[in-house]
Amino acid sequence: MKQHYPVSKEDALPHVVILGAGFAGLTAAKALAKTRCRITLIDRRNYHLFQPLLYQVATAALSPADIATPIRSILRKQRNASVLMGRVQGIDRQRRVVTVDQEEIGYDQLVVATGARHGYFGHDDWEAVAPGLKKIDDATQIRRRLLLAFEQAESTSDQSLRKALLTFVVIGGGPTGVELAGAIAELARQALVDDFRKIDPSQARILLVEAGPRLLAAFPDSLSQVAAEALTRLGVEVLLGQAVTNCTEEGVHLGNAEVPSRSVIWAAGVAASPAARWLGCEKDRAGRAIVGPDLSLPGAPEIFVIGDTASVISHGKPVPGLAPAAKQMGVYVARVLRARISGAEPPPPFRYRHLGSLATIGRQEAVADFGWLRLRGRLAWFLWGIVHVAFLIGVRSRTQVALHWLWAYATYQRGARLITSPASTAD
Amino acid sequence: MKQHYPVSKEDALPHVVILGAGFAGLTAAKALAKTRCRITLIDRRNYHLFQPLLYQVATAALSPADIATPIRSILRKQRNASVLMGRVQGIDRQRRVVTVDQEEIGYDQLVVATGARHGYFGHDDWEAVAPGLKKIDDATQIRRRLLLAFEQAESTSDQSLRKALLTFVVIGGGPTGVELAGAIAELARQALVDDFRKIDPSQARILLVEAGPRLLAAFPDSLSQVAAEALTRLGVEVLLGQAVTNCTEEGVHLGNAEVPSRSVIWAAGVAASPAARWLGCEKDRAGRAIVGPDLSLPGAPEIFVIGDTASVISHGKPVPGLAPAAKQMGVYVARVLRARISGAEPPPPFRYRHLGSLATIGRQEAVADFGWLRLRGRLAWFLWGIVHVAFLIGVRSRTQVALHWLWAYATYQRGARLITSPASTAD
Repeated sequence: MKQHYPVSKEDALPHVVILGAGFAGLTAAKALAKTRCRITLIDRRNYHLFQPLLYQVATAALSPADIATPIRSILRKQRNASVLMGRVQGIDRQRRVVTVDQEEIGYDQLVVATGARHGYFGHDDWEAVAPGLKKIDDATQIRRRLLLAFEQAESTSDQSLRKALLTFVVIGGGPTGVELAGAIAELARQALVDDFRKIDPSQARILLVEAGPRLLAAFPDSLSQVAAEALTRLGVEVLLGQAVTNCTEEGVHLGNAEVPSRSVIWAAGVAASPAARWLGCEKDRAGRAIVGPDLSLPGAPEIFVIGDTASVISHGKPVPGLAPAAKQMGVYVARVLRARISGAEPPPPFRYRHLGSLATIGRQEAVADFGWLRLRGRLAWFLWGIVHVAFLIGVRSRTQVALHWLWAYATYQRGARLITSPASTAD
Repeated sequence: MKQHYPVSKEDALPHVVILGAGFAGLTAAKALAKTRCRITLIDRRNYHLFQPLLYQVATAALSPADIATPIRSILRKQRNASVLMGRVQGIDRQRRVVTVDQEEIGYDQLVVATGARHGYFGHDDWEAVAPGLKKIDDATQIRRRLLLAFEQAESTSDQSLRKALLTFVVIGGGPTGVELAGAIAELARQALVDDFRKIDPSQARILLVEAGPRLLAAFPDSLSQVAAEALTRLGVEVLLGQAVTNCTEEGVHLGNAEVPSRSVIWAAGVAASPAARWLGCEKDRAGRAIVGPDLSLPGAPEIFVIGDTASVISHGKPVPGLAPAAKQMGVYVARVLRARISGAEPPPPFRYRHLGSLATIGRQEAVADFGWLRLRGRLAWFLWGIVHVAFLIGVRSRTQVALHWLWAYATYQRGARLITSPASTAD
């Protein structure tokens, strides 16, 4: 087999190619630090993104650099790992080759961890008017839309346009939707409240629309209730059991009712990256590759699929698309590979260990569910902050985020209220 | 006269419209806080930018939000000031009306402070390949180019392409060019040095090209020499007396020699914003409006032009395009307006007071010239840092920038190494 990349003295070592440097892929790469192999970690970005805090970039509380760390920096000292920035075009299982941009890269073992993006349930045309929140660019685009809506509302004298500009609709009542709606409410009612002369930002309408019967479906009923009440106190209108039937530039349709809005954000539905298509393997309804008990593809033990790209069953239930699940899969695959390379016994099948669920709803309110313990209020909120700071990568990000939060807590302000151009050629 | 904006109970007060919220315009607005007038401050951005540190955003040391503050936040408590985000389309001197986007805004007194952008000496086609550094978007675009050049050099096997990718050319030996070249050298030789496997970033070539006989022409000869030596120690090739004859996607032409490079940055030549065209007034070679001794237009005492947009003579010499000069003009115009509004004697003609010149060249080296005192080395460097932190707006920016610098000083790392998309539609 021809190895195109990398060329080194250690060509004889098995070549592990990992696609995607999210929680799953990066964890796998790090867990292989002491294994005798060559690792090539490929991502189309030059940074690892701490997605759980992306909504805070979208709502001007944090800067992109606070939650993104260069992949090369993270793996600087891991000499068996190379990082390649590029876009995967396809996978040739026969020849064991991945095509990245124009280059072919041979592999002995392949780990596919290319994540997920938002799914629009067949309405892909809604994406342009109701952007999702998966990437840094999504977050800065949403930040731009939110802040521009207030600016335009201030400068227009058309009352109905002003009303539409000051109506913000978040679709999807999972953790992202809940946290986003709460953050938008705080932005309008606290950070911006004294900054305008003609409009009153605290009069903005914020709607959170969920098709199911309650928010945070993965949490116990009582905590869903807590979240809905906390959002209502912040001034968010929580609409349950309401399906979105259309999204246009003018607003959203809920059943037969039309809500005029210029800022619709999509936090519902997930579609896996095209990995299953590249691999030509079986997939579930969300497009995730169906893997066996050791997270490898049935019939292709040298190919693993992990993280949000994989459809995994553990304890008879699907494993949720959460950062801890992705990390556990990364660690597990590294164990399988280590055993294979050293000729040891393979580990037992992957088992997901649920550590708990956390969601925050603005200042001093959050819900936490650890199975044996349910928390709400200030303590849960504090815990949420500690956990998120602790899991950030690098002392710098931790210090930065902690300081931003302290500052925001003390002043009710937001530190990153910049409307930057969507295109560098804008002027 | 018809007043289209703002409509308020205080319509009878004189309406001062200020175009541009840079150092000049913002200072003027703040200096009018206690004057009986209505102020409308118009900018096409929602933030005030601390331009002297923009090169640190371009070289991944700072995030955009660290040096940009929302204009509305700055003027939150100044009740006589409204902020309008919009783009000036033209000025009708007869009707005393400014057109902003589609709206007409009447003024009693007009202050034009729309700044400057880079001038390409008639070669506007060079802008696409050799971007300048005036805006946040310029800085993130240059950051993207610099970091992508290293990524592409790592992934290519074409030796001559790799060499062109690792050649960085800065054109213009003023403070921006000097600081930028030094920062790129530090990025390559310190921050990135261990991050790659196939290339050695410290082998990158960094060229600083100046058409004149020395760097930092505004400084004394001896300090120009210090700067050139410090840059050379950092590994920058300083080329003096070399005119750029062409810029293409392949590189730059210096006389008859061609230097292949994929990253050319323009830090030479300034062209004023189109203010003189809007006003139909006399302008100098750089397009700046020529103003009288009280900074108003000859024949139009109700129109002032200040900051980089104005061509001003003080002590028989042109006033330089520096932040302190812009601020002094802002304060002066506020004095003139205050006198006019209260019916007092007008102040004496504007006199520019040069406070000193500062430029930094990497770690622990800088040059400072205060006329009566010239400094170099560690003390000048420390002073440079103190001055820049002190002049930032807001406790948050000051703390942030100081912390970023401490962290960078301790670790030799850069905190904002993100390659973000130039367009939100990129994928």
